[in-house]
Amino acid sequence: MISVFDHPWLGGLFGDAAAQAIWSPERQLGHLVSVEAAWSRALGTVGRVPPDTAATAAAAIAGWTHDFDLLRQGTARDGLPVPALVRALKDAAGDAAGAVHAGATSQDIMDTALALTLRETSDLLEERIAALEAALAVLSDRFGTRPLMGRTRMQAATRITAGDRIGAWADPLPRHRARLAELRPRVERLQVGGASGDRAALGADADAMMSALSTELGLAPADRAWHAARDGVAEYASLLSLLAGSCGKIGQDICLMAQQGVEEVELAGGGGSSAMPHKHNPVRAELLVTLARSAATDVSGLHHALVHEQERSGAAWSLEWMILPGLAMTAARALGLAAEVVGNVKRIGSA
Amino acid sequence: MISVFDHPWLGGLFGDAAAQAIWSPERQLGHLVSVEAAWSRALGTVGRVPPDTAATAAAAIAGWTHDFDLLRQGTARDGLPVPALVRALKDAAGDAAGAVHAGATSQDIMDTALALTLRETSDLLEERIAALEAALAVLSDRFGTRPLMGRTRMQAATRITAGDRIGAWADPLPRHRARLAELRPRVERLQVGGASGDRAALGADADAMMSALSTELGLAPADRAWHAARDGVAEYASLLSLLAGSCGKIGQDICLMAQQGVEEVELAGGGGSSAMPHKHNPVRAELLVTLARSAATDVSGLHHALVHEQERSGAAWSLEWMILPGLAMTAARALGLAAEVVGNVKRIGSA
Amino acid sequence: MISVFDHPWLGGLFGDAAAQAIWSPERQLGHLVSVEAAWSRALGTVGRVPPDTAATAAAAIAGWTHDFDLLRQGTARDGLPVPALVRALKDAAGDAAGAVHAGATSQDIMDTALALTLRETSDLLEERIAALEAALAVLSDRFGTRPLMGRTRMQAATRITAGDRIGAWADPLPRHRARLAELRPRVERLQVGGASGDRAALGADADAMMSALSTELGLAPADRAWHAARDGVAEYASLLSLLAGSCGKIGQDICLMAQQGVEEVELAGGGGSSAMPHKHNPVRAELLVTLARSAATDVSGLHHALVHEQERSGAAWSLEWMILPGLAMTAARALGLAAEVVGNVKRIGSA
Amino acid sequence: MISVFDHPWLGGLFGDAAAQAIWSPERQLGHLVSVEAAWSRALGTVGRVPPDTAATAAAAIAGWTHDFDLLRQGTARDGLPVPALVRALKDAAGDAAGAVHAGATSQDIMDTALALTLRETSDLLEERIAALEAALAVLSDRFGTRPLMGRTRMQAATRITAGDRIGAWADPLPRHRARLAELRPRVERLQVGGASGDRAALGADADAMMSALSTELGLAPADRAWHAARDGVAEYASLLSLLAGSCGKIGQDICLMAQQGVEEVELAGGGGSSAMPHKHNPVRAELLVTLARSAATDVSGLHHALVHEQERSGAAWSLEWMILPGLAMTAARALGLAAEVVGNVKRIGSA
Repeated sequence: MISVFDHPWLGGLFGDAAAQAIWSPERQLGHLVSVEAAWSRALGTVGRVPPDTAATAAAAIAGWTHDFDLLRQGTARDGLPVPALVRALKDAAGDAAGAVHAGATSQDIMDTALALTLRETSDLLEERIAALEAALAVLSDRFGTRPLMGRTRMQAATRITAGDRIGAWADPLPRHRARLAELRPRVERLQVGGASGDRAALGADADAMMSALSTELGLAPADRAWHAARDGVAEYASLLSLLAGSCGKIGQDICLMAQQGVEEVELAGGGGSSAMPHKHNPVRAELLVTLARSAATDVSGLHHALVHEQERSGAAWSLEWMILPGLAMTAARALGLAAEVVGNVKRIGSA
Repeated sequence: MISVFDHPWLGGLFGDAAAQAIWSPERQLGHLVSVEAAWSRALGTVGRVPPDTAATAAAAIAGWTHDFDLLRQGTARDGLPVPALVRALKDAAGDAAGAVHAGATSQDIMDTALALTLRETSDLLEERIAALEAALAVLSDRFGTRPLMGRTRMQAATRITAGDRIGAWADPLPRHRARLAELRPRVERLQVGGASGDRAALGADADAMMSALSTELGLAPADRAWHAARDGVAEYASLLSLLAGSCGKIGQDICLMAQQGVEEVELAGGGGSSAMPHKHNPVRAELLVTLARSAATDVSGLHHALVHEQERSGAAWSLEWMILPGLAMTAARALGLAAEVVGNVKRIGSA
Repeated sequence: MISVFDHPWLGGLFGDAAAQAIWSPERQLGHLVSVEAAWSRALGTVGRVPPDTAATAAAAIAGWTHDFDLLRQGTARDGLPVPALVRALKDAAGDAAGAVHAGATSQDIMDTALALTLRETSDLLEERIAALEAALAVLSDRFGTRPLMGRTRMQAATRITAGDRIGAWADPLPRHRARLAELRPRVERLQVGGASGDRAALGADADAMMSALSTELGLAPADRAWHAARDGVAEYASLLSLLAGSCGKIGQDICLMAQQGVEEVELAGGGGSSAMPHKHNPVRAELLVTLARSAATDVSGLHHALVHEQERSGAAWSLEWMILPGLAMTAARALGLAAEVVGNVKRIGSA
Repeated sequence: MISVFDHPWLGGLFGDAAAQAIWSPERQLGHLVSVEAAWSRALGTVGRVPPDTAATAAAAIAGWTHDFDLLRQGTARDGLPVPALVRALKDAAGDAAGAVHAGATSQDIMDTALALTLRETSDLLEERIAALEAALAVLSDRFGTRPLMGRTRMQAATRITAGDRIGAWADPLPRHRARLAELRPRVERLQVGGASGDRAALGADADAMMSALSTELGLAPADRAWHAARDGVAEYASLLSLLAGSCGKIGQDICLMAQQGVEEVELAGGGGSSAMPHKHNPVRAELLVTLARSAATDVSGLHHALVHEQERSGAAWSLEWMILPGLAMTAARALGLAAEVVGNVKRIGSA
């Protein structure tokens, strides 16, 4: 429990149940298994294995009891869980083992499962962007006309309204929605490549497999394997950080307003102090800044992962595993928390 | 000459004349002046000053002799060049001084000028993406069917073709074109806000000013000032790094191929060694990796700049000035160099 | 289980039992409680509370049953666990509640506990640096005189020996030991400041408290509170990344050697592939590169946390919580793994 | 003029004459030439060339007229300037050409020249740390006892004194001095390795060469070449960022104080606004924050450069060239500016 997101007590602050469910190992393994099952069914659909064999294999895969220990040992040995998983699924499939994973490579399974995770993540982000927009709209409706001291370069400038500042917070959100809509097709894609990414093992059936898998999983076909072309992942990371950054700006502003006592803003639900019981700290607003800075740090690592050697880089790919889940949690938590913080504003602008 | 891009000798390697021209102080100042002139004309168009006064002011602005020293002193004092520039332009305008900068703030001028610079940068990037695609297509046409050892996790895997690897290099480029097309409207936008970003100083003429300026400068209107909403800049930075990263992957692969002697690749124009005159180093391919890593570092800084305080953060905004020009140079150079490196491949795949 | 370090299957690859024990919530809470107990005893030592009361409070604290849920709720409310912890400890202390946390602030407790964690971490790092040095010495003894192709700029250069390359791997390690020895006194320090860091609540007893706490906990006194002076933490982070980086260089080199088949290196224990059962991937060597890049990313975030507002920044401080534990895990794992990878070299240099 | 440090107008704000002189191409080339001349003399000292020949060569080298164009063309071709430089110096040496660069490789020259640059940089940093300490001491002497509202988590906490806050600013500086003193021997070292870093070309004279060069240049000998062991550079980068970060904290605090109007701080020399002539912006304090964030970004890139392939990585080494000079400028400017900002405080604490 190294991560703040599932830490026993820090999780109370950083945790995000919906995002955590999406990124949970259980759900991840569920996706890996679903992709293997879909692969087996697709092998049947395109005629590489008899339909019955495919169905038997898919059923065996779907019925496989998750075994984390087995995957852990396999990952320790192989650097990733799929070889051990495939052996287990083949065992489960018995005579239908030939319909398991045929023509696939580990990365096909893991990246396709990642695409399923990112789809769920994007759905959550969309909801949360909308919820934050709604919360800001409510705030603006209630207090938008109140006067507020505009501040530039940390100095009182000219009088504006609370609505002007709230408007600046809301301004990027429709653009973020547009960005998310634009990039979704670039990451919600099947990964089908086989050993060296050339789909050779699928031969003439490669296109048909893509098509069958696309039907099975609801992911878009990809013209070619993207084993080593990680721009989709890095772009996704960039958007996650943009989202956290826009929320961080809201948090920073609220912290700065809270600094003026209750002159500019009044907040419900501030944090207590062990030394000063009278104090109410804008801990959630501060946390928005923290999350933004963490995301702005993480985004760099996922851009480094673009330098992906040859047909598959274990080093660059594993770097995604280290950073992407936490970054996704960060952005999701930031959006959820921003809506909460905005909702906790009891007044903004002059009393 | 701290920067590698205009360093007297490192510039021979890192320099990029076209990108440097776009980001040169002369061109930047040209844009600042153009924006001020357009502002004056727009004031006339919308009737905030008499048309003649506007025309006089605009002509005086356009005819102003660039004076770097004056701007340097002003920047040392004010933290940015525009107050000094405006004083000089007002002096130049004489009786028409009231038609200079009326209702504007420094950031309006600088960000609108930045939008002009980014427009030129994007044009260059588009050309270069296309040139790289063309170079890769030529390479694929010439050598695509040659066998090549596919390598995953730094190990020989299965035989692929040179075309498979070249295809992986080319694969992200159409997506990058799409990204660029999508984001251009999000950065090629007017910045109009006035003192605290609320356009109060333009009153009822704000929309008309936007419209007039849009006609003048060919930039899109913006619903509201984006003084403190820097997602466009951070998104642009992200794309710059994606571009450099995709080029870095090409460079890394070519370095790794060159490592095998001439078995996998033969390059024209390698670099010499002071200790081993016989050696030919793939210095340009290595440089692609360098540029990618520098870009992946820089992108983080521009995401941190999203946490922009209140109506205008001097700290966060200045961070953009420190990082964005070099990052733009990096991406432009990477694309240009990648096309050059690809063009220098004399053979790829088995001889 | 977002983190790779305690992930059910990825933990098989990334996990590190010794480092995880040090950074476990149980151990962290143990330190928090130990610090509170030491504080109570020190209050007695310096005469701010009667010795009996101090002893009663300390015993009650030491006997308190860890309650994660309570801390979680408290953290959700207050932004950190200490206010809730202190309330619980005061309840436990009953009449001796006045000897609990008197004159302290939450950050005193948490940072002093962090110092205890970093002390344990540094002990582990020292051991592991020594173990890696020993493993490299063994390798050099066995194979050091074997010829190896020296490679510069990814090209064959001149013949060197395996010992030359191993020597370059070992070269930074004594410097790292020196760095660690130098910085330990800069982080293994008490944090004593009280509400706003001025030790006002301890009055004339502040120095005596430092002295008593120093005796209790074996940490050095600090001239003043370092609530907002986070250079020790950022320096520690820098060293963690230096360690991971030096290990990453070893991993990178081994990957590149493995790339030449068994010509330059032979490894035990490579990873398997789901598509190519014959293949042996240098997954652990690759992982060293991954860990180095992750650390080089994280280090940035902890340098950003230096910009710590006023007497205490919730935002900057929480950023440490997000990044430091994972970075410490990364460095510890990198050192342990590097020794393992080096130990798995069956041959280096020509056969 | 991409860089803010030597930009025609931004240089008025970011520029730092002393640091720029140290990092100027003229001075860098001076060092390259000095190292080559010292190398020639050392060859004579150790008897690898006749003393007369060595003296002739050294004199010719010292008398060589700097030629940036030649180095630029050479760098464009070879990826670094030294091969072209050596050819020119050999031409200049005529019959004594054999006493030029014999047994050296380009990186020996460039890294030794870098060590000279870092020595000068460290001297400057030491001076500036001392100057900042002095400025803070003056401020504390003048205003230290004035009351000031202590602020934690962006909220008024308890009354402290101005001296408490100034003390927190000064607190890290002695530690920074200690760090600098500790690391200087780790970077002010000769680089002597030859083609593949094994000193083979110097044979039995390698140690004597080190000794002679050490006498010539005042740099410490190194047990072995550090061509590929870049921990010294990354450690130096880390300290540069620590310095900038500590200055950034001062800047941030002053910005936040200025936010309260003149209640907490009064500053001389604020920046003007083009829209609000009455306003005085704390632009220099803001700039300290900017510099800290830029440094915290850059430090990451130099840690990535630790993953240095084999005997010499062109990619990782060139990354240092891209980032280190600007980072050094950033830290030097931050220290100088911090002293200036502190000196511009007309009052701190209550009036």
